[in-house]
Amino acid sequence: MPAFVVVGHRAVTDGNFSLNDLPGSTGRLDILIRCVTASFFLSHGLRRNVETYLVLQGEPEPPKTLRFAGAELKYLNPDERSTASLIRTALMQNPGRENDGKREVQSTPGIYVSRGGLPETLEKMKEKPVFLLDENGENIRDKNIPEDAVFILGGQLDLTENEVELVMKLNPDVVSLGPKKLHASHCITVVLNHIDNIYD
Amino acid sequence: MPAFVVVGHRAVTDGNFSLNDLPGSTGRLDILIRCVTASFFLSHGLRRNVETYLVLQGEPEPPKTLRFAGAELKYLNPDERSTASLIRTALMQNPGRENDGKREVQSTPGIYVSRGGLPETLEKMKEKPVFLLDENGENIRDKNIPEDAVFILGGQLDLTENEVELVMKLNPDVVSLGPKKLHASHCITVVLNHIDNIYD
Repeated sequence: MPAFVVVGHRAVTDGNFSLNDLPGSTGRLDILIRCVTASFFLSHGLRRNVETYLVLQGEPEPPKTLRFAGAELKYLNPDERSTASLIRTALMQNPGRENDGKREVQSTPGIYVSRGGLPETLEKMKEKPVFLLDENGENIRDKNIPEDAVFILGGQLDLTENEVELVMKLNPDVVSLGPKKLHASHCITVVLNHIDNIYD
Repeated sequence: MPAFVVVGHRAVTDGNFSLNDLPGSTGRLDILIRCVTASFFLSHGLRRNVETYLVLQGEPEPPKTLRFAGAELKYLNPDERSTASLIRTALMQNPGRENDGKREVQSTPGIYVSRGGLPETLEKMKEKPVFLLDENGENIRDKNIPEDAVFILGGQLDLTENEVELVMKLNPDVVSLGPKKLHASHCITVVLNHIDNIYD
């Protein structure tokens, strides 16, 4: 089961935003929304074997993490506005701070919210093969990619030095997708197509 | 210069639609909008060497073709709503029916509209190396792809038999992107990444 962890440094952490101005009113949550679409949509149906984490670090209640479980997802459509609406509903839940922020609350089927941030998300990945996407890495086409690989990437902005340090503790392979730096959602599309070509 | 031709069988041909319900009110223009984003956006800047055609065949005034010229594009943002707004403006222009529908009117920089359909668009491609995207084709990774390749694909629906017949007159290579059928915009992302990896 491939997984993606996308860090949204400025992405809002409550549901009090306008669906009519996603780029302007959400700390570029629109970028993360497109990552969700890229993670799950096939021409006919959803990628049920993918799991995607959006780590939201913007105001007013950072951090929060949204987990999208492909196996359970319902009501997801490929347009930005409807996905934004599902996320808004998720951010209106109160997951509480029990268990060091690891407690998850399900909002709609397959969408979970917690008060965890990047450290709590990475903690779940420590037994898995981790790949950090970085334009200076080795080309993914020259690497062996296990089916249960976890890919970590920044949304609008690159990971900070501190975040990279956290990820490096998981001993990741650092991989690039090619010579041009892509939008986060386009990275996810390319990675999944690459895995399709290896394993199907 | 790679080019893409995407056929929107039901996509609306006037600008009288709601930005708040793109999937429901536009004949799935949202799918074509995501094709535009996939065609042009890099993490920093636009792909100035790409040209993308959206062939709109829905009511009330079919056909119309929108041409997006990467070299000239301005005001394009990566979110769906703002691109929909640019398209709405383009569909409010009147390109007239002169010169068999080949007359183009520029709406905003880099966005052109004409009353041509698929035949008129393919006419422009007849000197170029044409690739038809089809899940039964040979894998693109095993093919030689020239830098000025033209890729033809359906938006929401596959090309009709008549449309495939028109394309076949250009003697295209029929290529697949892998074992899973992808959304049209995801196809464009994968093709451009493949070309990046060959040529850059």
